[in-house]
Amino acid sequence: MNSPNDTARVLVQALPYIQRFHGKSVVVKLGGAAIDAELDRALAQDVLLLRSVGVRCVLIHGGGPQVDAMMRRVGKEPEFRNGLRVTDEETLEIVRMVLVGKINRDLVGTINREALEDPVAVGVSGEDGGLLQVTPRESSLGYVGDVSLVRASVLHRLLDEGLTPVVSTIGADGNGQPYNINADEAARAIAVAMAAEKIVYLTAAPGLLEDVADESSLVPRLTSAELRERIGHASVSAGMIPKLQACADAVDAGVGTAHIIDGRVPHALLIELLTDEGIGTMVKREKSW
Amino acid sequence: MNSPNDTARVLVQALPYIQRFHGKSVVVKLGGAAIDAELDRALAQDVLLLRSVGVRCVLIHGGGPQVDAMMRRVGKEPEFRNGLRVTDEETLEIVRMVLVGKINRDLVGTINREALEDPVAVGVSGEDGGLLQVTPRESSLGYVGDVSLVRASVLHRLLDEGLTPVVSTIGADGNGQPYNINADEAARAIAVAMAAEKIVYLTAAPGLLEDVADESSLVPRLTSAELRERIGHASVSAGMIPKLQACADAVDAGVGTAHIIDGRVPHALLIELLTDEGIGTMVKREKSW
Amino acid sequence: MNSPNDTARVLVQALPYIQRFHGKSVVVKLGGAAIDAELDRALAQDVLLLRSVGVRCVLIHGGGPQVDAMMRRVGKEPEFRNGLRVTDEETLEIVRMVLVGKINRDLVGTINREALEDPVAVGVSGEDGGLLQVTPRESSLGYVGDVSLVRASVLHRLLDEGLTPVVSTIGADGNGQPYNINADEAARAIAVAMAAEKIVYLTAAPGLLEDVADESSLVPRLTSAELRERIGHASVSAGMIPKLQACADAVDAGVGTAHIIDGRVPHALLIELLTDEGIGTMVKREKSW
Amino acid sequence: MNSPNDTARVLVQALPYIQRFHGKSVVVKLGGAAIDAELDRALAQDVLLLRSVGVRCVLIHGGGPQVDAMMRRVGKEPEFRNGLRVTDEETLEIVRMVLVGKINRDLVGTINREALEDPVAVGVSGEDGGLLQVTPRESSLGYVGDVSLVRASVLHRLLDEGLTPVVSTIGADGNGQPYNINADEAARAIAVAMAAEKIVYLTAAPGLLEDVADESSLVPRLTSAELRERIGHASVSAGMIPKLQACADAVDAGVGTAHIIDGRVPHALLIELLTDEGIGTMVKREKSW
Amino acid sequence: MNSPNDTARVLVQALPYIQRFHGKSVVVKLGGAAIDAELDRALAQDVLLLRSVGVRCVLIHGGGPQVDAMMRRVGKEPEFRNGLRVTDEETLEIVRMVLVGKINRDLVGTINREALEDPVAVGVSGEDGGLLQVTPRESSLGYVGDVSLVRASVLHRLLDEGLTPVVSTIGADGNGQPYNINADEAARAIAVAMAAEKIVYLTAAPGLLEDVADESSLVPRLTSAELRERIGHASVSAGMIPKLQACADAVDAGVGTAHIIDGRVPHALLIELLTDEGIGTMVKREKSW
Amino acid sequence: MNSPNDTARVLVQALPYIQRFHGKSVVVKLGGAAIDAELDRALAQDVLLLRSVGVRCVLIHGGGPQVDAMMRRVGKEPEFRNGLRVTDEETLEIVRMVLVGKINRDLVGTINREALEDPVAVGVSGEDGGLLQVTPRESSLGYVGDVSLVRASVLHRLLDEGLTPVVSTIGADGNGQPYNINADEAARAIAVAMAAEKIVYLTAAPGLLEDVADESSLVPRLTSAELRERIGHASVSAGMIPKLQACADAVDAGVGTAHIIDGRVPHALLIELLTDEGIGTMVKREKSW
Repeated sequence: MNSPNDTARVLVQALPYIQRFHGKSVVVKLGGAAIDAELDRALAQDVLLLRSVGVRCVLIHGGGPQVDAMMRRVGKEPEFRNGLRVTDEETLEIVRMVLVGKINRDLVGTINREALEDPVAVGVSGEDGGLLQVTPRESSLGYVGDVSLVRASVLHRLLDEGLTPVVSTIGADGNGQPYNINADEAARAIAVAMAAEKIVYLTAAPGLLEDVADESSLVPRLTSAELRERIGHASVSAGMIPKLQACADAVDAGVGTAHIIDGRVPHALLIELLTDEGIGTMVKREKSW
Repeated sequence: MNSPNDTARVLVQALPYIQRFHGKSVVVKLGGAAIDAELDRALAQDVLLLRSVGVRCVLIHGGGPQVDAMMRRVGKEPEFRNGLRVTDEETLEIVRMVLVGKINRDLVGTINREALEDPVAVGVSGEDGGLLQVTPRESSLGYVGDVSLVRASVLHRLLDEGLTPVVSTIGADGNGQPYNINADEAARAIAVAMAAEKIVYLTAAPGLLEDVADESSLVPRLTSAELRERIGHASVSAGMIPKLQACADAVDAGVGTAHIIDGRVPHALLIELLTDEGIGTMVKREKSW
Repeated sequence: MNSPNDTARVLVQALPYIQRFHGKSVVVKLGGAAIDAELDRALAQDVLLLRSVGVRCVLIHGGGPQVDAMMRRVGKEPEFRNGLRVTDEETLEIVRMVLVGKINRDLVGTINREALEDPVAVGVSGEDGGLLQVTPRESSLGYVGDVSLVRASVLHRLLDEGLTPVVSTIGADGNGQPYNINADEAARAIAVAMAAEKIVYLTAAPGLLEDVADESSLVPRLTSAELRERIGHASVSAGMIPKLQACADAVDAGVGTAHIIDGRVPHALLIELLTDEGIGTMVKREKSW
Repeated sequence: MNSPNDTARVLVQALPYIQRFHGKSVVVKLGGAAIDAELDRALAQDVLLLRSVGVRCVLIHGGGPQVDAMMRRVGKEPEFRNGLRVTDEETLEIVRMVLVGKINRDLVGTINREALEDPVAVGVSGEDGGLLQVTPRESSLGYVGDVSLVRASVLHRLLDEGLTPVVSTIGADGNGQPYNINADEAARAIAVAMAAEKIVYLTAAPGLLEDVADESSLVPRLTSAELRERIGHASVSAGMIPKLQACADAVDAGVGTAHIIDGRVPHALLIELLTDEGIGTMVKREKSW
Repeated sequence: MNSPNDTARVLVQALPYIQRFHGKSVVVKLGGAAIDAELDRALAQDVLLLRSVGVRCVLIHGGGPQVDAMMRRVGKEPEFRNGLRVTDEETLEIVRMVLVGKINRDLVGTINREALEDPVAVGVSGEDGGLLQVTPRESSLGYVGDVSLVRASVLHRLLDEGLTPVVSTIGADGNGQPYNINADEAARAIAVAMAAEKIVYLTAAPGLLEDVADESSLVPRLTSAELRERIGHASVSAGMIPKLQACADAVDAGVGTAHIIDGRVPHALLIELLTDEGIGTMVKREKSW
Repeated sequence: MNSPNDTARVLVQALPYIQRFHGKSVVVKLGGAAIDAELDRALAQDVLLLRSVGVRCVLIHGGGPQVDAMMRRVGKEPEFRNGLRVTDEETLEIVRMVLVGKINRDLVGTINREALEDPVAVGVSGEDGGLLQVTPRESSLGYVGDVSLVRASVLHRLLDEGLTPVVSTIGADGNGQPYNINADEAARAIAVAMAAEKIVYLTAAPGLLEDVADESSLVPRLTSAELRERIGHASVSAGMIPKLQACADAVDAGVGTAHIIDGRVPHALLIELLTDEGIGTMVKREKSW
């Protein structure tokens, strides 16, 4: 329980961070792991608070587990190759329905519920306004694409209007054929194209760990070069690799900092951006902390 | 096969219509009936052409048959009461996935494919930016809502940016709970809130017929008062009643004209708006044709 | 000492207030009593934090004690009639120098020091751009004026540019003759002309007290009508009367709420605006809390 | 007679051209040869239609025959040297009256008549706003000038306001002395200065002919280099030479394409710009058709 | 010869007038009487100076004598009925050529010559952008029209761009048929539609005279009511009546003041607007000088 | 006494200068020497007149003698080292009060008095909006600073709003500590940062003199190189040296011309800028007069 006095002190301690990030873009990638309603609500509050202090937040979400569930519900077994979902036409349709028609909707709804009189969240798929243009990855995977072009102005125009975009990572190729895109990778491409100040990955781990079995062995900060070295190590979990790769690529392409933080901690985003302590792992191009 | 000469003549005949509708808003409601890819492509071309001559088009779509199909696919039987879908939580989730995650996506994709280098279509759900706020209709129907507020600025801002909104008719109540909305009714509410020049219903009939069994018995034009008189008649098919009601309500609330046209005719929209002949039934408040 | 977790919780609790006051104008009157450097610094942080969440703050200051000190330093004894400073030409010159050339400067300096890379405070006297036009009060008082016109656009234009005005309450009559103005009264006139959401008086008391000798007898809220009734009471200190009068007048002329709070409490302004508890006395036109 | 269906098809075929030329500038030079009222009306419709699909049209006109007629009417014999009109002071005054006060007026009137409620055409002489600044060509020709500076912003500002400029090719030197300018040449200078997408010459021939005596021997397209080679050939009529020269110069200076088309064909402009077939001769810098 | 000192004093004396007229519109009607090049130059300087101090000047010109001369040159005798020119089609064409193609051109040229590096004058006919819409006066007069609609935005948009419009008083009816308009009357209609601060008639007389034979009997100021009384008097010359009528009508319709001044005095316009003395006759609605 | 005719002639002679300086910035430095009320009034008129013809004037003032007087009044003796005021904390406070709270106020008041209904002057200290950032000069001088950064946008934004800034030359270092700045030097830094057309020093001498004892030995114009050569000469008064240095530095850093003129001559500023004669000494980078 905080006294009003404590409250003021806390707000004032956040001021230098607010001043630093005002007007900057921050791209936040949510994990596809089963999302807790209370955590979602806390995240919505974080995003609205950051917006109210002038941070331009874009949310990117995946949705692997929910897609798997829906596929099984219609009697289709998910299939993966090197960690990537084999995506035939029927799968693509299900991916699209689940991401755009369910997960994105729930996120938009949660934010707008917290936003009270001024609903600011809008759902965006990578197909809208040609936001994410893709090239096919390899034919054996079916409709799985790599981002070849980001039309960042679609997002900037929404942000300029005071709206907060929530992005599903479906893209389209030059012929308008939709493709499934890895969400970690799409988040990176968007952050780079927006010249974002930060990209933040919310994960089900405290960050990058020295020892994957020991949650207290967090690596608080490292350079992109140091990060690249670790990617091959045995100590790194397979699921973490695309995120680590994306973090290194993002900062090397001009994004200010990349963060891997624990999405299971309520308000982790706010803590990472507006407090001295921070949580999770931060990646920069140069050693300048 | 047209000669260049004919081409020019046709274009020039369209000029007075172009001059009249430039800068005006036109709301187009697509039927939920199974949509033909070729017809969709023709509609996409119509919308892009109207946009290029300065018409501000908004597309609204339903999707009843596709929702039914998906429900059955996951082993759930659709249930209706007085023509309205009984919508429990699971049904709502399926409606939302099909409308927002499938039908809307396909329409956006089709338009952007025709738009070539300049993808302009963006999908919008009534939940985005609080576009459609609803109140529940009656508890026995579950999550079926009536539009109580339209935030038309969400659409006008997209149109001002040169984007073409494609709207799924899911709304939310004051607590952010999503609701299913009748698409005919949502289209009317949007047209009125936008102060649209026209609302156009694309249907699977030539328009309003004197004799429902005789497609040649089209009523080309009538006032909203005349239309209201006919709504009770035996000659009117049940499925047509909500559209007729919406047409009468729209023009009485200030929309310039309401049209019921045949969505099975390629380019019906363009023909209705840019040629002398027109097709289908036109409703105005006053006898001024 | 707050944990990051507490920090986040505090920030999130402030969110509804931030949403409510975003884009609104708040006029803050500082007392002329000797100002503590640390308190000033806390106030500067409050103003910057409010600015960063979109509140349009204007600071108004008086400076009676400092004027008295300067007068005595040049060998002139301050003289008052009914609580108002008798202001001959020499006194006016000293008032102006102390208010505009010293107190205003110190406040601007303190805010800009906290603002780091983005110095946003600008000093404004009521003579600048004709901000405060006055008529003389009564000849025996010399150059003491009442505000007859506020050119609020001078302040709005600065706020639109992202600047934070700090106002000294010197005005000028139609012939450009400067006049001294009561700062409580000038703050009210400015808040009304700006159609401010709030006017806040920082005083050397906890607020309006039931019993002036008992600081715990605070009246937390009352209507302007209730306040007017109390103004004549013996329980009200003489120095408080102009502030109470100004509060009642402000809310009756359209300002949302008026507040009298304790300027001796660090961050009192932030606590009053962004926390549930609030401190001090709040005045509204109607009983709607 | 077209069916509505044909109409729609024609409109849709024009769509890719509309998309390509939207927002681009097109400079159209009308011949000075006796102009048929019906052809003028068709041209006015073409210009209005192009404007309605976002093409920024500027019309440039000459007027040789009408000047000759007026000169003879006041008892003065036209005199030419190397195809250029010898222009003494009295001649200059007649040229100016006929171009600005008659031909320009008739064109503006014709367009505004077709534009119905929204008269958009405005007459502009090269003297207005200093649009065309000239240097004298050679003293023996009198007041005949070459364009030395085009203030294209005069035209762009009118186009930005939705107005359609109709330009008479009178310019002025640095001392404000008016000069007569060759209209083919002025059109080229304007197109280059505007960074136009197209310059179109409407002539009394089908275009560039292989055999000047055989109207079916049209050269449909060639590069500027190929065009320059032909200019000296016997097969090219003298009157065509300045146009050919201007076409080659225009595309070499950055104008997208130059066209010589048959002004005697109704709607030739529209056919050339918005249909697959095109008519007349098209010149580009590179062989890229 | 003025000393620099005198110069400064003169400039400073003009300051209050400059402050008063800054941003205001002033419509100046030039007489059609033979215009002296030196007087024209002085007028151009006046207009440029007024423009440089923020006055929005519009020039309107007639041209009776020059039309007569041109008509006779092509062998046609001018004919008048009740002071109005009988205007058959041929006459209309000559009127248009002389006004738009000669007088307007000369004025534009003179102003741009004085404007040096920044040519700001643009010629406008009442047909351009539909500026002056007319209804025919009476059939026996042929193409003589009365102004029924002024599209003042055409002029305001040019003025907003820093351009100075010079207007020829040719208008068009709803079918685009051009008509000759009395210039005094057109100037009034334009001043009223622009909500001008002043309308100024430059004439070949010192103003309104008590005794038409005595140039020293100037009436310096009178109300519109007083002016209307005098219009019928024998002392008023026939040629002055339309101007007097227009002055009274203009101020009664909201124009600030109307002036009749001596166009034969160099810089009469500047003297009237920027000095204490003024020259000529001033008309106001109320006696407030 | 001027006749209206002379008045007009004078105004017209100023026209070319007005055309040349329209939209340009002019920085005017006023001497700190005792200022005569009548001269101040004349200067205010000059500034308002220049503003009304589109010149963007910024006034910079010093105030040495008035600071000395105030210091003595509170019993403190002014102390100088190499012509620079030794500035301890108490001195700094007095300097700030006198400059910002007295001299600046009087100038703002004088201009607004002359500006009548439209008070345009606003006082600005170098601390406002961080206008003047400084580094300390040398510790023995105390709080005397050199300008290290000018935030010229503070001034440009005020000018864009139609306001006229009057600047006191107090600046602040990175920690917000205020410093006294030499006003001649601050004026130069501001003129350079604004890319001003002119910097004008109003002094108590006719300009640069060949023989300091002979006021008729004025050097009317010279290059910055010629000026630098003279700075060391015995003929140059010590007080003039910083101004001469500043003039040479200003034009070498891109300011169009620098002027030293006689502030004792009423309207000297206007005479220098708007008449052929000019007064005082003009410095340019190149010999191009």
